[in-house]
Amino acid sequence: MDLTTLFAGAKAAGRGLLQLPVERVNDILRAVADEAVAQSEYILAENARDLARMSSDNPLYDRLKLTPERLQGIADDTRHVAGLPSPLGRVLKHTVLPNGLDLTRVSVPFGVIGVIYEARPNVTFDVFALCLKAGSACVLKGGSDADCSNRAIVRVIHGVLERFGVDPATLTLLPADRAATASLLQARGYVDLLIPRGGRALIDYVRENARIPVIETGAGVCHAYFDAAGDLRKGMAIVNNAKTRRVSVCNTLDSLLVHAARLADLAALCAPLVESRVRLYADAQALAALRGHYPDELLEEATEASFGTEFMDYKMAVKTVDSLDDALEHIARFGSGHSECIITEDEATTAKFLRLVDAACVYSNAPTSFTDGAQFGLGAEIGISTQKLHARGPMALEEMTTYKWLVRGDGQVRPK
Amino acid sequence: MDLTTLFAGAKAAGRGLLQLPVERVNDILRAVADEAVAQSEYILAENARDLARMSSDNPLYDRLKLTPERLQGIADDTRHVAGLPSPLGRVLKHTVLPNGLDLTRVSVPFGVIGVIYEARPNVTFDVFALCLKAGSACVLKGGSDADCSNRAIVRVIHGVLERFGVDPATLTLLPADRAATASLLQARGYVDLLIPRGGRALIDYVRENARIPVIETGAGVCHAYFDAAGDLRKGMAIVNNAKTRRVSVCNTLDSLLVHAARLADLAALCAPLVESRVRLYADAQALAALRGHYPDELLEEATEASFGTEFMDYKMAVKTVDSLDDALEHIARFGSGHSECIITEDEATTAKFLRLVDAACVYSNAPTSFTDGAQFGLGAEIGISTQKLHARGPMALEEMTTYKWLVRGDGQVRPK
Repeated sequence: MDLTTLFAGAKAAGRGLLQLPVERVNDILRAVADEAVAQSEYILAENARDLARMSSDNPLYDRLKLTPERLQGIADDTRHVAGLPSPLGRVLKHTVLPNGLDLTRVSVPFGVIGVIYEARPNVTFDVFALCLKAGSACVLKGGSDADCSNRAIVRVIHGVLERFGVDPATLTLLPADRAATASLLQARGYVDLLIPRGGRALIDYVRENARIPVIETGAGVCHAYFDAAGDLRKGMAIVNNAKTRRVSVCNTLDSLLVHAARLADLAALCAPLVESRVRLYADAQALAALRGHYPDELLEEATEASFGTEFMDYKMAVKTVDSLDDALEHIARFGSGHSECIITEDEATTAKFLRLVDAACVYSNAPTSFTDGAQFGLGAEIGISTQKLHARGPMALEEMTTYKWLVRGDGQVRPK
Repeated sequence: MDLTTLFAGAKAAGRGLLQLPVERVNDILRAVADEAVAQSEYILAENARDLARMSSDNPLYDRLKLTPERLQGIADDTRHVAGLPSPLGRVLKHTVLPNGLDLTRVSVPFGVIGVIYEARPNVTFDVFALCLKAGSACVLKGGSDADCSNRAIVRVIHGVLERFGVDPATLTLLPADRAATASLLQARGYVDLLIPRGGRALIDYVRENARIPVIETGAGVCHAYFDAAGDLRKGMAIVNNAKTRRVSVCNTLDSLLVHAARLADLAALCAPLVESRVRLYADAQALAALRGHYPDELLEEATEASFGTEFMDYKMAVKTVDSLDDALEHIARFGSGHSECIITEDEATTAKFLRLVDAACVYSNAPTSFTDGAQFGLGAEIGISTQKLHARGPMALEEMTTYKWLVRGDGQVRPK
């Protein structure tokens, strides 16, 4: 199959969406939510075919599995997106120039958004809903493990689109093979923005090979710095929440930096982690402070590799620093620009940390676990951007739009 | 020379700028303006060495050449940048969440901005001034033809930076060879944003090879559509201004689309172009309408290649369309997403054109020649972005910043 035809179809569908009224978009999303439930038997049967090909020991199995409850959750999420304000048509700037030209900078759809993701069929609904709400067609490349599920979901959504007289190419699912990924990365002139959702290997592959604009999402090496002026009680709650709330997500804490003046409090700071059996990789000073107070079988001496690692597990590095500047230096070196946090009661220290840390989200006295579009009150998000271009941190509906300048004149010309 | 050392130096300098007060930035820029004039003898002598290596017949010669007047102009431009409002520290969003978390989305510098450009030494001043004002260090890769000039300018600016106690790596000039370009494109982790300024070949090379975020600038295939309801007098002024004001810039008109119902007015519409001896490549219908009214030696039949071409010359394609939809279709196919214009007195037609054309700047009854940061009242610009990510159209100081989220808490944690 010539994928160029598919890309061109998606582009035409994206142009068609420019004429689709906002209320119609929301009606479609609500209808999709209804169908996700009404056709759950069909979707689950196709999902079962995917599951049959995967060992239930595989850690991906749970992410691949759909259930009636999960479909109900997907329907709820889709209805939620329908209820959010439209990110389109926002007047971002408006001026009338001295020569009478009327300038408006207004938010508009990208056109076509490409998303590459792994074996999580819920993402198919999710990305479609967000892209449609943002006025863009989407080109999806899902994981081959979820291909039956994805095809079923797309068939259900296509039924709704056809019922509403909307071009089904608004949701274009590519073949689940590597050749499709390679073509998508080269789909210049058709796909306006590409968002890879997945592990490090996928992101690296996309960065190396994409010829179209990409927003990188995902990798978070997050630090908490417990300052000389840190409040111990707050620190205990923040470190524990940031580390153990969910270890497999990108906003999870990976490294604790502790001011040398507070080594005596380190054991108390880490005490809440024992319950979750968090393994600590501590430098010599921190190790000495923890020995005898933290379970010995969960304590190891840190190596160079302990720092800058995204553990995705009940593991955390611990490093002693002599000053705020040391902490800033460490974060600049090992952080991934995702989320960083300071625990301190000192206002000048807070201000310096917030100013100098170069990351999407910089926290004082709150855990990095809050880095999330819904938590930030932004509605749904398509991912957490770790780059600085266009979207930084939670990428929600507003960041899924671009803008254009509308210039209304009456025959003015520009002087030579 | 190991360029990684240079990149790391620029990164450290960019971090240092986070502590430089805005007033200091402006003082530095004013001092640079003073030195551009005070040291003009030295700069011009070095520029003469570059000029001696280039034939004065070379079309680049004039762009390479500096004069006392041009240095004065550069000084004025630099002072102008000093006088613009700082794009940093703007509060883009502020909310207090129900749990008491205080969220601020604030504009911050990128860190390090890389710019690749050709033999135009004025760009060295220009990019430095804009990047510093936007709080970023810059890494410059200039054309080898201008290397003596660029090194002299950088030396002058370094003198100012040292006087103000600012790290000279804030302005890092790379060797003027291809190896440096290749390294820069791979400078992941050091350079946050890359802006190529130059011709199509450079932009294509950068897109193919960059592993860091890029903003493409430059290419403009611009259309004007003279609608059935177009005002002839406005049309004549607009088409002439858009085509002939300056033919070598990206906002220049390349194609005129004329509604078939107005073919009788086509000769009048094009009459002002005769003075500039604009060569027209017209389709059969338009050619028939022009024959006998437009100088024969300036008329040719259009070929497929006439459309979608950025002429950069006194040349223009002319195409007859049967409807607004035809015009929209043609623009979608051949436009480069830069600037497009309609000439019409019909409000519904205007609204449809403004809504459906997918370009950075969409005009009604005004020429595309206005696409320019200063004309838009945005201050100085670093280029015209033709992509949709982050900056679209004139990229001025605001678009040379990114943002981060500051989250201030008091020990709140996120529920499981």
